[in-house]
Amino acid sequence: MNTRIHPFPQNKGFGPKARHALATKIFDDLREMSIDGPGVSRATYGPGETAAMKYCAELAENEGLSADYDDAANLIIELPGKAPDQPFLICGSHLDSVPQGGNFDGAAGVVAGLLALIRMKREGVVPPRTIRVMALRGEESAWFGQCYLGSGALFGELTKEDLARPHRTTGKSLGSYMADAGAKTDAILAGDKLIDASSIAGYIELHIEQGPVMVARNMPVAVVTGLRGNIRHQSIVCKGDAGHAGAVPRWLRHDAVLATADLLHRFDSHWAALQERGLDLVLTTGMLMTNPDDHAMSRIPGECQFCLEIRSQSIDTLEAFYQLARTEAEAVARERGVTFEFDERSLASPAVMDDRWIKHLLECCEKNKLEAEPIPSGAGHDAAVFSNAGVPSAMIFVRNENGSHNPNESMEIEDFMYGVDVLHTALLDPPL
Amino acid sequence: MNTRIHPFPQNKGFGPKARHALATKIFDDLREMSIDGPGVSRATYGPGETAAMKYCAELAENEGLSADYDDAANLIIELPGKAPDQPFLICGSHLDSVPQGGNFDGAAGVVAGLLALIRMKREGVVPPRTIRVMALRGEESAWFGQCYLGSGALFGELTKEDLARPHRTTGKSLGSYMADAGAKTDAILAGDKLIDASSIAGYIELHIEQGPVMVARNMPVAVVTGLRGNIRHQSIVCKGDAGHAGAVPRWLRHDAVLATADLLHRFDSHWAALQERGLDLVLTTGMLMTNPDDHAMSRIPGECQFCLEIRSQSIDTLEAFYQLARTEAEAVARERGVTFEFDERSLASPAVMDDRWIKHLLECCEKNKLEAEPIPSGAGHDAAVFSNAGVPSAMIFVRNENGSHNPNESMEIEDFMYGVDVLHTALLDPPL
Repeated sequence: MNTRIHPFPQNKGFGPKARHALATKIFDDLREMSIDGPGVSRATYGPGETAAMKYCAELAENEGLSADYDDAANLIIELPGKAPDQPFLICGSHLDSVPQGGNFDGAAGVVAGLLALIRMKREGVVPPRTIRVMALRGEESAWFGQCYLGSGALFGELTKEDLARPHRTTGKSLGSYMADAGAKTDAILAGDKLIDASSIAGYIELHIEQGPVMVARNMPVAVVTGLRGNIRHQSIVCKGDAGHAGAVPRWLRHDAVLATADLLHRFDSHWAALQERGLDLVLTTGMLMTNPDDHAMSRIPGECQFCLEIRSQSIDTLEAFYQLARTEAEAVARERGVTFEFDERSLASPAVMDDRWIKHLLECCEKNKLEAEPIPSGAGHDAAVFSNAGVPSAMIFVRNENGSHNPNESMEIEDFMYGVDVLHTALLDPPL
Repeated sequence: MNTRIHPFPQNKGFGPKARHALATKIFDDLREMSIDGPGVSRATYGPGETAAMKYCAELAENEGLSADYDDAANLIIELPGKAPDQPFLICGSHLDSVPQGGNFDGAAGVVAGLLALIRMKREGVVPPRTIRVMALRGEESAWFGQCYLGSGALFGELTKEDLARPHRTTGKSLGSYMADAGAKTDAILAGDKLIDASSIAGYIELHIEQGPVMVARNMPVAVVTGLRGNIRHQSIVCKGDAGHAGAVPRWLRHDAVLATADLLHRFDSHWAALQERGLDLVLTTGMLMTNPDDHAMSRIPGECQFCLEIRSQSIDTLEAFYQLARTEAEAVARERGVTFEFDERSLASPAVMDDRWIKHLLECCEKNKLEAEPIPSGAGHDAAVFSNAGVPSAMIFVRNENGSHNPNESMEIEDFMYGVDVLHTALLDPPL
């Protein structure tokens, strides 16, 4: 294979130091294969993702593990267990990245699974259940405007419209990229289930934390309780009346910016109050702007556009806050003589992680002498797709500084190795 | 002259109907000369402004009035009075417009003065003082980024930097446009006073109202008490920390949008409170935006930029509110862990209209059976330059729907004629 970057190390002793060295080398190789400016770019169903998969497949086969692709072109690396006819375990994550993103977001989970299997193989340990490491395609929405493509395809969740989505730069459809990568697009279009959820005993995903909580609390490893869902509006437009900034008195103004500021401040105040009552919630207006075509310093703004994202682990909290937000928008509109035009809302349901697996992973942390806490995941992951499809799912977070989706993400390999140890322990003694 | 559009009407009877007809014709001609899409464009010190001046000069000379240009290339139409050695009166306004602006903003004041002088001339009335109708150059800031160019030049207020300002489309300097129009740029650059303020007994400007107050209060004519000054910041940047919208909990966030919303809402609340205490104040953030280079729906906004304009007739109110605004910015910055970076502020002082002239104009309204109220001008006008140079100044507002600086401005000629009558009455019996 021509994707090999460096020769693989010899298969001798595989103690902590050797495992650390192999992890470092794999991440270095992956970075070097996909470097793009200060970050890395591994496009969904594109050359960067495919190259990373081939690299992992070759590495696995070199270690005596089998490697194959499923009907959605996801990579499967397998180590058969003692009970090959029983439901198997999946350690999954993804290998794609956002454009000029970080090297660890996604790849850490695939590499962790690989390292756990290589260790079992080298140490001659046969696990109780068959274990599959899966590199799932297209977790990032950056390339086709939608996330969870590889996992969604497995459970028949992609629509005709999804497959028609254009690539962000080439404009070619997702369907054509999938077909080029070897996926069976006819079956995917038909909504066929490419995998049987009841054949999976557990889906375990290791991932870097994308928030700052573990750094702030000094935890190298944590166990995820659930994944926040979200309600989003891409566009809310406040419409008032433009006018001369000096000549229109307060009582005749319908200022779209001050109305929007009022509304956002109300949202923020409610958030603070609900937070104090212990509810899980985050709220973001990441984009906000007056109309660049006609705004001016001396013009009362007639229009102000913004987006809204509400996230929570609880669907009840999401819906309750959403209704509150709409009610406040009506109140501000009434009080200030403006309107708020909401585009169609989107809802991604929260995903609950499996209680037995959470308990098991916390115990495995303890066995590895790690003080791990359960924390929520604010970001979405493929684990949400498996969980919502009925697969008992769980996640291990590894501490990571500077967030993700940027070249500055920074996971210490030492922290990562703690996560791999927990995963290794958990896979050898699953709660079945 | 080749700028004539239609033949002028015969100089016969000049009663109310004939005056109304002439006013209509002049405005129609001016519109036709400078039509540009739905609006009119008469560029500062450019062809549109110069053509309108030539048209007015020809009209005046046709009526036996003298027409000439001063050293700043402003047009002067004169009717000598009974006491030619005594200080004279000026009725002034401007003939330039913003790009694709309205036909009445500025032109109404020049046409009103012209109609008053034509009436005196036709009726054989010699006014007590010499009266000059002045069409001042460059009142609009739209073309060179600065306003009051013709009036500012008269009082030696233009600097070398001002004359170097580039034209918004051609990039050529203001100085070169002034020279081309016949202005003495050496004298202007030297800061010479091109006119002696003590030789002016009064500067009276008729102008369309640019706000909605007179429409709301059903007043065709009003007398201006003062012109609001302003304090402005072109750019205030709130800097927080960008981050994953789902993964960073509230206690670790430094959200630039919510901080800005908080601050703007505080400004708005203070404004409402001060307004109730009777202070004259308007407040506008006409431009507001997150950074388009890196904002996203799922990214905590790390930056939010906005402008701020505070206007008041009182310099004390301006300064007091400004200090309050800065104090609130510090408080929000402290509470939310963000910073607010203010660019250099600009200050335009308020202008007070002359008490005797205000009283006189109100009396002239009464003589014309008009119920006029004194109201403030939210917008700036050349009258502010004359007033701040020590000339007793006053303004007559004429009702106008839909604001100004847009093609939809809409003054009824009937309302305008009321304003002309008040001006005519006032000029014949000035409060000296």
